[in-house]
Amino acid sequence: MNTHVFDQAIALTPTADGQYTGATSPAYANMVGPFGGVTAATALNAVLQHPGLLGEPLSLTVNFCAALADGPFGVTARPVRTNRSTQHWVMDITQANGEGGIDTVLTASAVTAARRTTWSVDDEAMPTVPPVAEVSPYTVPAPVAWIQRYEMRPIEGPIPHIWDGGGDHSRSRMWVRDAEPRVLDFCGLTALADVFFPRVWLRRATPVPVGTVSMTVYFHAGAAPLAGCGHGWLLGQARAQAFRNGFFDQTAQLWNEGGHLLATSHQIVYYKA
Amino acid sequence: MNTHVFDQAIALTPTADGQYTGATSPAYANMVGPFGGVTAATALNAVLQHPGLLGEPLSLTVNFCAALADGPFGVTARPVRTNRSTQHWVMDITQANGEGGIDTVLTASAVTAARRTTWSVDDEAMPTVPPVAEVSPYTVPAPVAWIQRYEMRPIEGPIPHIWDGGGDHSRSRMWVRDAEPRVLDFCGLTALADVFFPRVWLRRATPVPVGTVSMTVYFHAGAAPLAGCGHGWLLGQARAQAFRNGFFDQTAQLWNEGGHLLATSHQIVYYKA
Repeated sequence: MNTHVFDQAIALTPTADGQYTGATSPAYANMVGPFGGVTAATALNAVLQHPGLLGEPLSLTVNFCAALADGPFGVTARPVRTNRSTQHWVMDITQANGEGGIDTVLTASAVTAARRTTWSVDDEAMPTVPPVAEVSPYTVPAPVAWIQRYEMRPIEGPIPHIWDGGGDHSRSRMWVRDAEPRVLDFCGLTALADVFFPRVWLRRATPVPVGTVSMTVYFHAGAAPLAGCGHGWLLGQARAQAFRNGFFDQTAQLWNEGGHLLATSHQIVYYKA
Repeated sequence: MNTHVFDQAIALTPTADGQYTGATSPAYANMVGPFGGVTAATALNAVLQHPGLLGEPLSLTVNFCAALADGPFGVTARPVRTNRSTQHWVMDITQANGEGGIDTVLTASAVTAARRTTWSVDDEAMPTVPPVAEVSPYTVPAPVAWIQRYEMRPIEGPIPHIWDGGGDHSRSRMWVRDAEPRVLDFCGLTALADVFFPRVWLRRATPVPVGTVSMTVYFHAGAAPLAGCGHGWLLGQARAQAFRNGFFDQTAQLWNEGGHLLATSHQIVYYKA
């Protein structure tokens, strides 16, 4: 079986009820530790692999306590409450700290839910942008591996080429998808929600050190509509609302090419200034 | 001491390390159980009361597993990771279920952080709205107690007076503050982030049953600037991005009268259609 590099990266081996082991993937390496989107997807995958799972992901919050060290890690997923139409999950990722102890490197929670077809409407319309074919592919100067795992076609707000402190807004728009073809699913969408470079780099045109502290994803589509997107392009939009004393927020949307809003996401990010 | 009704509602009695008891307050009663904003603030209060606390709240996520029953509840707050400038917390609220068992009614996580004065800028400017004095006070028709705890002056998107299914947008703007004077703090701001009526009522002009499933608050100001707001009015703005198959999202901002963005917040909400 020719497993996709993303599925290899989020793969988990069950060791007990709701307990798994996994390992970081060099293919998704970031500056320090792996790309956070893949770590978030791994936490969600522990829920999806759980035999007690009811429903599909509705919301996911991950808190990045520390950078993962390259190598193996443990994941737990625990259903703490099962209702008629929602199920509440608590997860964490731990690693041996080399001193005989176990450190928590990520905490997370998720809600899964049974979706029923009902009155629905999007209030955040997809912005009018040039179609994919009219936007140039982007060769990212960054030397980190995970960037190579995605095709990106920036429409607005690309990574600055000149770091002159001259930024005046924080909004990026781009077409994006996995570089190696992969059918969209909840884990893939989770990672895509974290694919935007740090807003502070754009707003200040200054490449300061950053790190996501907490990220939340709300899923607005079920498994079938996601699979229906196939390997299609998504339009991603991200912007900040506030940069304040070492932390900025990011609010993001991901639409499919047909203009359906698939996910909204938020994160709060440390920056050094 | 004349304790504010809000501080009575979120009050906790320590019973062990990181364990507390509290009780629902009739003053903040909602249709079923208490106002979620007060429950969220109570979970945060467990962190703020913890002797091991370092820093100030940066982010808070609460997952509402079930409506609280009127009466006592237990709260736990546990620091799972303490870094140089951030501390990660996991909390829950439990209640006896009347069958000899203990049910989880809320799970939560928070990050506290040391803020350092640095380069800062708001990217989401406060919208231009009429000053408080020019906006009429609002007498809410709702029969629930918690609404009386706030002064609200709706500028745009008030609760529909005619439920005719004729809504065409989901955005509300209002001036808001505690009805009984109270100096702003993290717990008060948390509750204010949940003060907006359900977006689906506005978008559809139809009063369907709803319930918040998960809510996140990012704090963009420290304790001193919050206290500096005193009992001043905040401008609250909320709107939905998607209503899809039984769940909608809400994205909200809270500015002080001076136009500083104090908090951004997001929630995902169940609706029956």
